[in-house]
Amino acid sequence: MMKVLVINAGSSSVKYYLYEMPQAQVLARGSVERIGEKTSKLTHVFGSQTYASDVSTPDVDEAVHLVLDTLVDEDVGVLDDFSEVGAVGHRVVHGGEEFTGSMLVDEHVITSIEKFADLAPLHNPPNLAGIRAVGAKLPGVTQVACFDTAFHTTIPKVAYLYGLPYELYEKYRIRRYGFHGISHRYVARRVAALMNRGKYDVNAITCHLGNGCSITAVKNGHSIDTSMGFTPLEGVPMGTRSGDLDPAILFYLVDKGYDPQSLKTLCNKKSGLLGISGLSNDIRNLLELSAQGNKRATLAIDVFCYRIRKYIGAYAAVLEPFDAIAFTGGIGENAVRLREQICGGMSQLGVQLDRTANEAATGTEAPISAPASRVKVFVVPTNEQVAIAKDTYELANQGHPVASR
Amino acid sequence: MMKVLVINAGSSSVKYYLYEMPQAQVLARGSVERIGEKTSKLTHVFGSQTYASDVSTPDVDEAVHLVLDTLVDEDVGVLDDFSEVGAVGHRVVHGGEEFTGSMLVDEHVITSIEKFADLAPLHNPPNLAGIRAVGAKLPGVTQVACFDTAFHTTIPKVAYLYGLPYELYEKYRIRRYGFHGISHRYVARRVAALMNRGKYDVNAITCHLGNGCSITAVKNGHSIDTSMGFTPLEGVPMGTRSGDLDPAILFYLVDKGYDPQSLKTLCNKKSGLLGISGLSNDIRNLLELSAQGNKRATLAIDVFCYRIRKYIGAYAAVLEPFDAIAFTGGIGENAVRLREQICGGMSQLGVQLDRTANEAATGTEAPISAPASRVKVFVVPTNEQVAIAKDTYELANQGHPVASR
Repeated sequence: MMKVLVINAGSSSVKYYLYEMPQAQVLARGSVERIGEKTSKLTHVFGSQTYASDVSTPDVDEAVHLVLDTLVDEDVGVLDDFSEVGAVGHRVVHGGEEFTGSMLVDEHVITSIEKFADLAPLHNPPNLAGIRAVGAKLPGVTQVACFDTAFHTTIPKVAYLYGLPYELYEKYRIRRYGFHGISHRYVARRVAALMNRGKYDVNAITCHLGNGCSITAVKNGHSIDTSMGFTPLEGVPMGTRSGDLDPAILFYLVDKGYDPQSLKTLCNKKSGLLGISGLSNDIRNLLELSAQGNKRATLAIDVFCYRIRKYIGAYAAVLEPFDAIAFTGGIGENAVRLREQICGGMSQLGVQLDRTANEAATGTEAPISAPASRVKVFVVPTNEQVAIAKDTYELANQGHPVASR
Repeated sequence: MMKVLVINAGSSSVKYYLYEMPQAQVLARGSVERIGEKTSKLTHVFGSQTYASDVSTPDVDEAVHLVLDTLVDEDVGVLDDFSEVGAVGHRVVHGGEEFTGSMLVDEHVITSIEKFADLAPLHNPPNLAGIRAVGAKLPGVTQVACFDTAFHTTIPKVAYLYGLPYELYEKYRIRRYGFHGISHRYVARRVAALMNRGKYDVNAITCHLGNGCSITAVKNGHSIDTSMGFTPLEGVPMGTRSGDLDPAILFYLVDKGYDPQSLKTLCNKKSGLLGISGLSNDIRNLLELSAQGNKRATLAIDVFCYRIRKYIGAYAAVLEPFDAIAFTGGIGENAVRLREQICGGMSQLGVQLDRTANEAATGTEAPISAPASRVKVFVVPTNEQVAIAKDTYELANQGHPVASR
């Protein structure tokens, strides 16, 4: 038995989960939101109780300290003291080409996370600040870094290389990295289990559809291609991100007077579902508006589904045989109508949904394909925090530097 | 019977074909290359003879005049005088959203071609210069504009809209247009004929693989999606063009000090097969080098085939049922090994090549799928000039403003 703390430290929020391992029982969980704003908000859930408080946390460092203090608080805490924490696992977005699995944190790992901040300037710095804040408060505790890119390090060169001068890969490491790897790996393993297969004995297309969206081709349990690329901008359109574009659109808009910085914001913050609909980045709102007859809401939904469908087809062409599709993430787990729209009329690819099963599956793990469907389709609620807790527990126990994948 | 002249006027070359219609017999053909350089080169083929000459042609206007003069030349000409020319057909790259088929040239058409030069600044101006040069020399002759974009105007909004703010579509008409439409249409019609189907009774994926490459999903004879987009940069990697990129790569490189103009050149002129291999933009050279064991040549070929395969899968997912794949263009018609690499291991999509038939088909129209293949695969040498001649003949005869499609 070991208590494992999982920290997901972003630039504006820190989320945490305290688990009793190996049974993965949640002892406490919560978040600090709106870090750096005038008033931040702490939410702490323990047992059946929720404690909420307005706080002042100017940065990630302070937010992590607040989380740790809350866990040992006399009134709302669940720990007597920090010595009860056996290990701390962190979500780290970018592990470059170096980290092919979760790693025990040491000086080298820290240096590398710092180095890869060039590739993930919004994410790696707060991730690292979280590791350092824990290290300062709990000196000597075992820490583990779980990389969002690690699962995708098995992608072969033919799929990770862009059609650019090779020197750009050599000099800047410009290539497809892929993200959401902790989620795609978790879902791929669940699909294998649901099909009574070994974890390396399944070819699946995993669709992580949430605020960010990515689709991964998994062959023999390993990622061989994924829709997000050098950054999380590539792939299908997302809440506010454009996804794939003709790169020449950017040259055209520069010629029209846009500067590259404003285009970066435009593509990341004003595009996707929000940009197409002009209404909302939230698929739930768009589904409601579409049901009321709003054409731009319907258009945004249709483009979203169409582009996902094309990725499924593209990956079906490079996975032979292709056994399963899995939907996960806030949209993937809940949007019944979208799953139907995405998978409808794909019988020639071997995909046939069971309408009733699809409608019943919202936020629950379930098969949703018809019994006769050659390709099995599943809803698998993702659980990145449990995946991080498991890697952390495993590494803390075995003492090897890399977790099994 | 009518003599129809076909002109393809680019910024650095003018190609021409003189046909006897409707039998499409070639009376003469040729080109003026290296326009604007110190010495340009005229090549003129008539009957079994070839006449070549170094000439001085500072611009497209002069080049077209030279072509016309050559056609009536006392020694090498094939016409007594210009009155024998019944009509002249021109390839025009960009017809915007307006032109859904070939058009009789009038003032309105000219104004529109000028307007769409904003979308095709390297192509529409020389195309238009060709039309004007013919008009000056052969006043009153019937001229027809055949647009590379026209075949793709049936692409539905769900496929032509990018995940960008909708205002960019409204203000600048930023959308997928697609190119090589004259070729894709020709090939789709030939596929229908080869399958003994009506021209609107076939669902096919047409792969135009030449110096530029594009792949089109044809449903019921109409284009419903295509890999080139707002410009011919998007899609699969080409000789020197990158094809699809994470758009954020450009933002990253701007942050590294690249200016947008140099990036535009980099993506258009230094990328693709040339960029990946570092050796050549010519697939024939790369195949030779790869056979000799050169790894970078092999890598470039592998990326090229892999990305084409993904597009075939993507389009298979939006075409139900999907009846045929056709290969055309300099690479598609000749590169036996690439067709094998692209189509191999796609039996779950219903595609199975006949190895012997594939090897036999170089530059000839032929089925190359196995008899048992659910999806038929064809090699179809493209013939854009005949397609232009036919549209031109049809329009000159019927007097309707738009050719049948």
